[in-house]
Amino acid sequence: MKALEQKILNEGKVLPGNILKVGSFLNHQLDVAFLMEMGEEIASLFASDGVSKILTIEASGIAIAVAAAAKMNVPVVFAKKNKTSNIPDDVYASEVKSFTHGTTYKVVVSKEFLNKGDRVLIVDDFLANGNALIGLKEITHLSGAEAVGAAIAIEKGFQGGGDALRNQGFRVESLAIVDEMSDTSIKFR
Amino acid sequence: MKALEQKILNEGKVLPGNILKVGSFLNHQLDVAFLMEMGEEIASLFASDGVSKILTIEASGIAIAVAAAAKMNVPVVFAKKNKTSNIPDDVYASEVKSFTHGTTYKVVVSKEFLNKGDRVLIVDDFLANGNALIGLKEITHLSGAEAVGAAIAIEKGFQGGGDALRNQGFRVESLAIVDEMSDTSIKFR
Repeated sequence: MKALEQKILNEGKVLPGNILKVGSFLNHQLDVAFLMEMGEEIASLFASDGVSKILTIEASGIAIAVAAAAKMNVPVVFAKKNKTSNIPDDVYASEVKSFTHGTTYKVVVSKEFLNKGDRVLIVDDFLANGNALIGLKEITHLSGAEAVGAAIAIEKGFQGGGDALRNQGFRVESLAIVDEMSDTSIKFR
Repeated sequence: MKALEQKILNEGKVLPGNILKVGSFLNHQLDVAFLMEMGEEIASLFASDGVSKILTIEASGIAIAVAAAAKMNVPVVFAKKNKTSNIPDDVYASEVKSFTHGTTYKVVVSKEFLNKGDRVLIVDDFLANGNALIGLKEITHLSGAEAVGAAIAIEKGFQGGGDALRNQGFRVESLAIVDEMSDTSIKFR
């Protein structure tokens, strides 16, 4: 999506440790008009996949998931991060390693909200090593629902998570894929 | 908002400890079509207030803030919860006591995204004791921006946070106010 690449070039900041900051429009401040455009793009990419539910993860996935869901007319479920070791019986749980924070946490979804027969589109703002996405895929699988694919705003292609999933036959559509970045330049796939 | 009251009656569950669970549409699963209706209601309540920015708090405030912002054509900023004691220089910070979890945390907003001259509408999914709202008001004040009021989906009126703020002259608009609740009935103001 050219408009997203241009916005990353205009507003993104590359920080040490392979961090791409896009807090001005995607994960601290939200450019809601632009989010709705991204949502429309996601809706058109998955228009013929019979998506019945969007699954994302708190907190920064929620905004783009809502934007996509508004265009696709389906509910969103957002997985919650659970820092306690106790996992109640009434949730599906998976473990996720965070690239940005160097920590491990569990993500949980109430069993009420994912069901066999659901066709789930996973939506998130970022894809790097793919760990959050793998966790959401696992939760979908545990529920008996089918994951039809993933829609991501920004993929850091050089970290390989997206391609590893594609190589396993899982459909991953990223609106922008950064293949190289430094403090002076950002190259898209 | 009658439709919200009806939805709370149909789908809400009252749990011990004054918890009102509305995870089926507001804070775990999101009924996005209904969120957009709530967003439209908020937009019409504050249509003549010159709102330039919506401020909310992660995670469950984000969805309704995005819905309101989509109708009002303004950006959202979501405050982040910071569990470390270190507060960097480039953020505004305030302390919030969580009623639901019995904990205290700091909320922070990057100084880049709130400015003198901004007219800020605070949006959140729930209002109980009002602590999150007071924290967001304080952050707005620290930035030099003006808080024009707050729009809340569900206020637990019997916990008094909303009325305390109204008595101080702050405008709080809640789409539904629960004045009494038990496991057999919910009464609205």
